[in-house]
Amino acid sequence: MMRPGHLRRLVKQALREDVGSRDITTALTVEPDSACKGVVLAKGAGVLSGVMPFWMVFDQLNADIDITEPMADGSTFIRDDVIAEFTGLAQPILTGERTALNFLQHLSGVASLTNQYVKAVEGLDVRITDTRKTTPLFRALEKDAVVHGGGRNHRQALYDGVLIKDNHIRAAGGIAAAVEKAREGVHHLMRVEIEVTTLAQCEEAVRAGADVVLLDNMDSETMRAAVATGHEHGVVFEASGNVTLDNVRTVAETGVDLISVGALTHSAPAADLSLEITLLD
Amino acid sequence: MMRPGHLRRLVKQALREDVGSRDITTALTVEPDSACKGVVLAKGAGVLSGVMPFWMVFDQLNADIDITEPMADGSTFIRDDVIAEFTGLAQPILTGERTALNFLQHLSGVASLTNQYVKAVEGLDVRITDTRKTTPLFRALEKDAVVHGGGRNHRQALYDGVLIKDNHIRAAGGIAAAVEKAREGVHHLMRVEIEVTTLAQCEEAVRAGADVVLLDNMDSETMRAAVATGHEHGVVFEASGNVTLDNVRTVAETGVDLISVGALTHSAPAADLSLEITLLD
Amino acid sequence: MMRPGHLRRLVKQALREDVGSRDITTALTVEPDSACKGVVLAKGAGVLSGVMPFWMVFDQLNADIDITEPMADGSTFIRDDVIAEFTGLAQPILTGERTALNFLQHLSGVASLTNQYVKAVEGLDVRITDTRKTTPLFRALEKDAVVHGGGRNHRQALYDGVLIKDNHIRAAGGIAAAVEKAREGVHHLMRVEIEVTTLAQCEEAVRAGADVVLLDNMDSETMRAAVATGHEHGVVFEASGNVTLDNVRTVAETGVDLISVGALTHSAPAADLSLEITLLD
Amino acid sequence: MMRPGHLRRLVKQALREDVGSRDITTALTVEPDSACKGVVLAKGAGVLSGVMPFWMVFDQLNADIDITEPMADGSTFIRDDVIAEFTGLAQPILTGERTALNFLQHLSGVASLTNQYVKAVEGLDVRITDTRKTTPLFRALEKDAVVHGGGRNHRQALYDGVLIKDNHIRAAGGIAAAVEKAREGVHHLMRVEIEVTTLAQCEEAVRAGADVVLLDNMDSETMRAAVATGHEHGVVFEASGNVTLDNVRTVAETGVDLISVGALTHSAPAADLSLEITLLD
Amino acid sequence: MMRPGHLRRLVKQALREDVGSRDITTALTVEPDSACKGVVLAKGAGVLSGVMPFWMVFDQLNADIDITEPMADGSTFIRDDVIAEFTGLAQPILTGERTALNFLQHLSGVASLTNQYVKAVEGLDVRITDTRKTTPLFRALEKDAVVHGGGRNHRQALYDGVLIKDNHIRAAGGIAAAVEKAREGVHHLMRVEIEVTTLAQCEEAVRAGADVVLLDNMDSETMRAAVATGHEHGVVFEASGNVTLDNVRTVAETGVDLISVGALTHSAPAADLSLEITLLD
Amino acid sequence: MMRPGHLRRLVKQALREDVGSRDITTALTVEPDSACKGVVLAKGAGVLSGVMPFWMVFDQLNADIDITEPMADGSTFIRDDVIAEFTGLAQPILTGERTALNFLQHLSGVASLTNQYVKAVEGLDVRITDTRKTTPLFRALEKDAVVHGGGRNHRQALYDGVLIKDNHIRAAGGIAAAVEKAREGVHHLMRVEIEVTTLAQCEEAVRAGADVVLLDNMDSETMRAAVATGHEHGVVFEASGNVTLDNVRTVAETGVDLISVGALTHSAPAADLSLEITLLD
Repeated sequence: MMRPGHLRRLVKQALREDVGSRDITTALTVEPDSACKGVVLAKGAGVLSGVMPFWMVFDQLNADIDITEPMADGSTFIRDDVIAEFTGLAQPILTGERTALNFLQHLSGVASLTNQYVKAVEGLDVRITDTRKTTPLFRALEKDAVVHGGGRNHRQALYDGVLIKDNHIRAAGGIAAAVEKAREGVHHLMRVEIEVTTLAQCEEAVRAGADVVLLDNMDSETMRAAVATGHEHGVVFEASGNVTLDNVRTVAETGVDLISVGALTHSAPAADLSLEITLLD
Repeated sequence: MMRPGHLRRLVKQALREDVGSRDITTALTVEPDSACKGVVLAKGAGVLSGVMPFWMVFDQLNADIDITEPMADGSTFIRDDVIAEFTGLAQPILTGERTALNFLQHLSGVASLTNQYVKAVEGLDVRITDTRKTTPLFRALEKDAVVHGGGRNHRQALYDGVLIKDNHIRAAGGIAAAVEKAREGVHHLMRVEIEVTTLAQCEEAVRAGADVVLLDNMDSETMRAAVATGHEHGVVFEASGNVTLDNVRTVAETGVDLISVGALTHSAPAADLSLEITLLD
Repeated sequence: MMRPGHLRRLVKQALREDVGSRDITTALTVEPDSACKGVVLAKGAGVLSGVMPFWMVFDQLNADIDITEPMADGSTFIRDDVIAEFTGLAQPILTGERTALNFLQHLSGVASLTNQYVKAVEGLDVRITDTRKTTPLFRALEKDAVVHGGGRNHRQALYDGVLIKDNHIRAAGGIAAAVEKAREGVHHLMRVEIEVTTLAQCEEAVRAGADVVLLDNMDSETMRAAVATGHEHGVVFEASGNVTLDNVRTVAETGVDLISVGALTHSAPAADLSLEITLLD
Repeated sequence: MMRPGHLRRLVKQALREDVGSRDITTALTVEPDSACKGVVLAKGAGVLSGVMPFWMVFDQLNADIDITEPMADGSTFIRDDVIAEFTGLAQPILTGERTALNFLQHLSGVASLTNQYVKAVEGLDVRITDTRKTTPLFRALEKDAVVHGGGRNHRQALYDGVLIKDNHIRAAGGIAAAVEKAREGVHHLMRVEIEVTTLAQCEEAVRAGADVVLLDNMDSETMRAAVATGHEHGVVFEASGNVTLDNVRTVAETGVDLISVGALTHSAPAADLSLEITLLD
Repeated sequence: MMRPGHLRRLVKQALREDVGSRDITTALTVEPDSACKGVVLAKGAGVLSGVMPFWMVFDQLNADIDITEPMADGSTFIRDDVIAEFTGLAQPILTGERTALNFLQHLSGVASLTNQYVKAVEGLDVRITDTRKTTPLFRALEKDAVVHGGGRNHRQALYDGVLIKDNHIRAAGGIAAAVEKAREGVHHLMRVEIEVTTLAQCEEAVRAGADVVLLDNMDSETMRAAVATGHEHGVVFEASGNVTLDNVRTVAETGVDLISVGALTHSAPAADLSLEITLLD
Repeated sequence: MMRPGHLRRLVKQALREDVGSRDITTALTVEPDSACKGVVLAKGAGVLSGVMPFWMVFDQLNADIDITEPMADGSTFIRDDVIAEFTGLAQPILTGERTALNFLQHLSGVASLTNQYVKAVEGLDVRITDTRKTTPLFRALEKDAVVHGGGRNHRQALYDGVLIKDNHIRAAGGIAAAVEKAREGVHHLMRVEIEVTTLAQCEEAVRAGADVVLLDNMDSETMRAAVATGHEHGVVFEASGNVTLDNVRTVAETGVDLISVGALTHSAPAADLSLEITLLD
């Protein structure tokens, strides 16, 4: 969840980027006191996300919005659904339309793709999580979109979770040394996760006392064996690497606890949503 | 082209987002004076973009980068290509790796998709251009990426071009009135573009003296007829709406001067690039 | 037109500059709940501009202003006119008085001087425009003031218009090359203007397809001849350089379309306006 | 004297204002590695001010400036003087030229006008000072310009000096009460000044123990009498209101210690300076 | 007194520091619409300061606070006093509790310690003042706290008062030279203070025309003699250095006008205040 | 560890606060090219912290510092120790002296007090940790100072650790419910801590699966019993509330793993350090 102040600043920068000195076209063709009605329409199926930045765009432009049909993050839609309706001042609504949609379409795209992954593993005891492969400055919004789509969040960033990767291991002098250094240095409220690529490494990580083991790019069989090395002693297992909609269920069936998917945030196509505006007399 | 100061601020915010108070893992497992080598590798084909923010990430982290194999925006790559090589301090390189790649992969994704559209219309006298459907705060970077991929830019934003759409027309009291109001109000260095959806509207726009006419969602035949209404008198024609890699050549063959494609920036999957890091002794 | 957020920030910085840690005098001599009446008075004739920053100063100081006699940008005034009346809290009004007047007097000075130029060419088909010779950070406000005075705006800045000057021409390798490079590089909604100082250059510029030609520091006769080189083919002509209230009509009579005057913004004396404050019991 | 950080920010905002997304013309017509020579030329007489922001503009644009003939604030110049010479990269110099000159011409205008007032009272024991009637955000730069022109500064702002005006007096319950409240409340390093308009008020202010008395809009005779009420007891007298180049010497001859002149900063015409640029091969 | 905008920014940064991406615990355990009652309780005796930042914390978190029992800066409290009561939304109140208390406890600590010094010199004609030994970024708030505790402020900072210390004296070439340079350079509303360590220096300072003399680290006898050198001619004397609650009255009895104490702001322990929160059904 | 960019901004704000428009005294009495030597001296015993902000103050003022005797965070000092030596420009060193010392003395005060607590429990297997009772905006610096003094950090802030307190418990519907909600909601790399005040609550918390239990304000006997409820099953115990230098060893002997002490950061007196400056010829 993004702090309101942070979101306000993001929207402000987005409007500065698109409006700049002014929206020439609207200033010259639309009267300041004209009102209009806006309808958000689905032109395809998906899951909604980005409701807060959408409204905030118009709010920052003082569009005097009256929402007659609200919308909620996480709700699903199909083609031709009326997702929301509102009225307000025509000038700021026309000026903000594109920016508002740019937020809504991108984030709904993330939620929608996440939802497809979540449905693909339905019935299995596994979490679909995001990664840190997010659009710079959209980390919090995209992580929320993943939750709206039914997924779960991995750590937020480098500051709120320990995840030891291959170079950290090498720098620390091996798996055991890396786990110990991390454990000793972090405060007592944090667990330690370590990335491994072979079964042998996985066994070493479990022996070293890792709380969580990330199985990177393993085949299903190895993954299953890896999970067996520590699952019953409370070790948590995460699968990562080359996960697609086609193979995600197979990965899930290996018994891992989490599957993290970079594509959720870095390759989701924009949701097909439009904003139909009608001038009111 | 983004102002250097603007880019610096974007990178700074991106690092604040991902590093926050600190990169706990790296701080605890890697020595401050360790050095490493980094290699940017292609795991698929495409066109590069985002070189400036990539290096700026490490620069802002004081990684003391020495580039041994430089890379250039706009260069093409295929799977397994070594795109760049450099050495530097291990701690900041590991801390910045993900943020640097997030920029490079997203922008190279945009350049790569653009390039596919450009190739699809090869030999025809038409420009593939972007739209304002960009990721908020990435307008300038994504528009540069479009150029790196061989495309051309549309207006940058609402402040540097007049584009009259349906609601503006209605608010102004018709096509002729809208064109006149815009012409009268803008400074003498700007042209006036107007969006139409029918041939009749197109004719009216040309008569009204529009410099550019945007043909929205027309079929090929109508588009061809529309182009005929004013091309020889110097009117410029832009096609827009539902353009895909499959139909873009057909659209181009109608004789339009520009084809604008929202997907270039809102639905390009991340380019498959990785950063392989090796610790140096 | 300045974005509201941008204006707010300008006013905030202006108040920080003048109030700093606090207005010692007012804090020590005026009770926090005292109210007062304010009257904006003209002590000379002119045209008003700067109404928005004027009120915003008091608004940011939470002066609880009630406007009993509003004022409007662009209205004319003569000596002893009551321009506006309002009531509010005495402390913030006394604290903000000078900053509010500094905006209003400077901008009304610009509007008033502009108005004198506009009146000097009354009846002729020519625009008086501003230049980029503005007070740093006051570009948008001063350009608005020019409009309030009856003038027209030139391009806003370097980003929204192409104007090729002598050094650009030399760097590009001549007039024709410069025009072509600019035409090829800008997006399709922008015209290309080029500056010339001789009739021969003007002819070359028109041949090269320049949309607008700036005639720099020419005498009237040459200017008239220059205008004849392309006016009938739709080329626009701008006069610039050493234009004064005395010679502006002569310049206008050469047939140029625009006359740009740096003095409008860089040498307008402050309008003579005062704010009379009366404490209310 | 402005803090360097504050000046840097002012210049940064000025460049953002004028360059925005980019200087289109220069980007399209000048090669990135072209060099040029710049010469600052006087086209009239005056006193220089604004040297720091002038160079800082080019510095922030990374123009790689080499100053071959430096210039100094406070130096005088006459028509056709070469004020400074430098070489550097052509692109950033062409981009920054206007912004750099906007600073230099405005501030040199202030210094030059100040200098005329200072010369008008030459030989008399009186200070010409500025007021708070400055261009918002240019307080420190304009106050420096006044010093460069030979003038002296009044208080910087509301936070570093006490100046009790008519409304403060009324609010405090009279001259004596106002002086006492101010004296009691300010820290021990500050003097108390009070504005009066009549001789009687002046006598009351001196009796009340005011350190400085501002004589507002008095005729010469009254002023002379006012000065006599306290000069020999160490009270300082300031004259203000309707001071012009024509009457300033008469005002000075009344024996006042300071004459403050709003026009120095709010109505100084820009100094006539130009920057001649020559491309180097 | 701190400008409201400055305080808002300080509180915003404080909340960003403590809340960051979000208050995980509260988000997961408390319902968004839960309300609660808050009671500020004293667990020891003291003087209150920091009321504005305390409320502003909750205001910025949109806690919808209703103050049922207000509190005022400068009021005294003893153990078990109910200092304030309010109701509001439980989530933001729990999130802001610690930050709000961090302000209130620190500033009340400063006010409380100041008050002990003030009481220690009760009945004597002397001011207890603060110094510039404040917590960075808390200058204005801590100086207000000193006033709330009954103390007086010294200059706010380096910009609003002249205080010549030993190195300035040496650099200027002696006491007389330093005083003269300062006097000549400052505007006419400022006094000049100089620091001395011996009686001889004090005499020289008084002769040089210093308005205020700071007696640094002198014993009582010397101080008394120093005061005698100029007190009757209007010179003000300040004592400083190694002043404690034990010796402050002795110092005061030497006849100095001010005693400045660094410990007021750099070594005041936090006041023992707590915030008891009760959930409302 | 504070991000360098964050520290730079803090120092910048601190200098803006103390220097403002300028250091009048130094500007008027010291020549710009004077050099000086600075020596940091201990006037009492303690542990050093704040070295980075100390140097950064002079760096931001461009003092051209040459460190001839460096100092290191965490080093101990006794009265009369020379802690550091350096040379540089006299003007910026005199201007920055107070701000630099304000950082160094406050942070060294925190490190020194922490060190006393750490020594008081020497030989016992327990961590002395800080709390969130820090000076707003100094969280990271004060937490570093705690480490320099030999202590350990608790969570950084609300975003990187779960700590369920009494109101969270009540809002969630009991200890078990609160632990479960937190566990379910946080990402897999975070532990869950809960605060209890009685033995019964402690038992319930352990049964509910809390990873860490905070024993608030318990007497030693109860604490010992509380520790026994879960220590052998890996539950971590933290003691908090009314811990002083006198009783901290007794608390430690109950077997708790951590003792958190608010006074470390909210009530540490400034370390007695001075900066002796000598002008160089």
